[in-house]
Amino acid sequence: MKILVKIRYNGAGYCGFQTQPNGITVQAVLTEAFSRLFGFPCHVTGCSRTDSGVHALGFCATVVPADESVSRTDWCRIPPEKMHRAVNVLLPVDIAVVAAAIVTDDFHPRYSVISKAYEYRIHNAPYRDPFLMNRAHHEPRRIDAAALSEMNAVAQMFVGEHDFAGFMSAGSSVEDTVRTVYAANVRRDGEQIIYHVEANGFLYNMVRIMAGSLMDVAYGRKTSEDIRVALDECRRTSAGFTAPPDGLYLSDVKYDREIHWMCL
Amino acid sequence: MKILVKIRYNGAGYCGFQTQPNGITVQAVLTEAFSRLFGFPCHVTGCSRTDSGVHALGFCATVVPADESVSRTDWCRIPPEKMHRAVNVLLPVDIAVVAAAIVTDDFHPRYSVISKAYEYRIHNAPYRDPFLMNRAHHEPRRIDAAALSEMNAVAQMFVGEHDFAGFMSAGSSVEDTVRTVYAANVRRDGEQIIYHVEANGFLYNMVRIMAGSLMDVAYGRKTSEDIRVALDECRRTSAGFTAPPDGLYLSDVKYDREIHWMCL
Repeated sequence: MKILVKIRYNGAGYCGFQTQPNGITVQAVLTEAFSRLFGFPCHVTGCSRTDSGVHALGFCATVVPADESVSRTDWCRIPPEKMHRAVNVLLPVDIAVVAAAIVTDDFHPRYSVISKAYEYRIHNAPYRDPFLMNRAHHEPRRIDAAALSEMNAVAQMFVGEHDFAGFMSAGSSVEDTVRTVYAANVRRDGEQIIYHVEANGFLYNMVRIMAGSLMDVAYGRKTSEDIRVALDECRRTSAGFTAPPDGLYLSDVKYDREIHWMCL
Repeated sequence: MKILVKIRYNGAGYCGFQTQPNGITVQAVLTEAFSRLFGFPCHVTGCSRTDSGVHALGFCATVVPADESVSRTDWCRIPPEKMHRAVNVLLPVDIAVVAAAIVTDDFHPRYSVISKAYEYRIHNAPYRDPFLMNRAHHEPRRIDAAALSEMNAVAQMFVGEHDFAGFMSAGSSVEDTVRTVYAANVRRDGEQIIYHVEANGFLYNMVRIMAGSLMDVAYGRKTSEDIRVALDECRRTSAGFTAPPDGLYLSDVKYDREIHWMCL
């Protein structure tokens, strides 16, 4: 038996999700909170690494006792529907559990994933917004309806099974760079332009390079043909810049089984 | 000639708009920024006092030279369409100018007002939201469609000309407590419930007491009849509690003349 929790966090104050020797991470903070809550050391495993400054609306992580001596079947005294109330008081204000579920031991927060969805938010107004500081990438130059439509057309190119090696940052060690994008679109929501993408997996910096490519097309620094070449010929130099992390949100994760999320 | 600026600010870090001896205020920060920008002391006058912790999306303020020796007609070297770029670099991240206009000397940011609009935002979800900390009032208990509809019906009572003395905090020295509410409604937007109200003026804490009354009705602590009595008989004790400042936003100000807002 494992506890699965759904988490929202503002990543501005963290060096990403995954624990590392230097800098505070979401995983380290969660591990400490759950260990204090249960009274014994816990392991927290996330659905994804997220980069420093990246946010999450529906991040998923499992919690299990770290100590083998703790019963594996009857260790959680807190009903899942009340987990958010119990643990949120032990978490800093920029991290919150929003739901919890019981899952079986064969469930893995990363390997049981069917698809993940991300949003990239661009604040497109001449002025900066005090409420979007570190929460959206600011692009002051107007993206008009024609440019927005072109961005959306480029997003449609990403849909389907492709080798996304041209949309991966150097330094990644993955061998299989083929991923399937299930949905992608670009829409305006007030002063924000939101790129939404769902896929069975993402390469290192893939969403940020996609978002950078869309912005480069909107501003005429790249053509949609450049992006086509980046995709067809796996050519990183034809794709756009790597958009900054502050506009990126992990929004949703789908699993290979039904999860009975609870929250009262 | 005066400069009129439209401002957004996150009020979480300020003791309200108006300068006071203890605590940092939005007016003091704006005054310092404009004085540095122009190179001589400036006076900044706001459209409203806002309480500590209250936010603004469309606050209006005028800027004039404080020194009589500065020319009153030709003192502003910065075109209004570029004002946001010039001054925002001198402002902290939680305050930003979003537009500017030139107005004549007879314009007053408070006395030339026709109407002001406020929003009160309630985060209605069982868990707290890391992105709404100090930006919405958290009410974890579910407000369902029936309760929302009752809130909206109570909001409709406020529309029209009424003596709102029952919706004013003690300690206010105003003599005329009659105000005209032009529009009021309550709607759900995702996890938030938003109360919007527009009036020719507001008494001290009026919007927060209205918002508290709506929540008291939603949770059965007051009836809509209680609120009717508070309104008809000016009875503060029949109205609801004073909702906390963090959910309140000054959203818009309308003036008795057309303002040529500029922002490039």
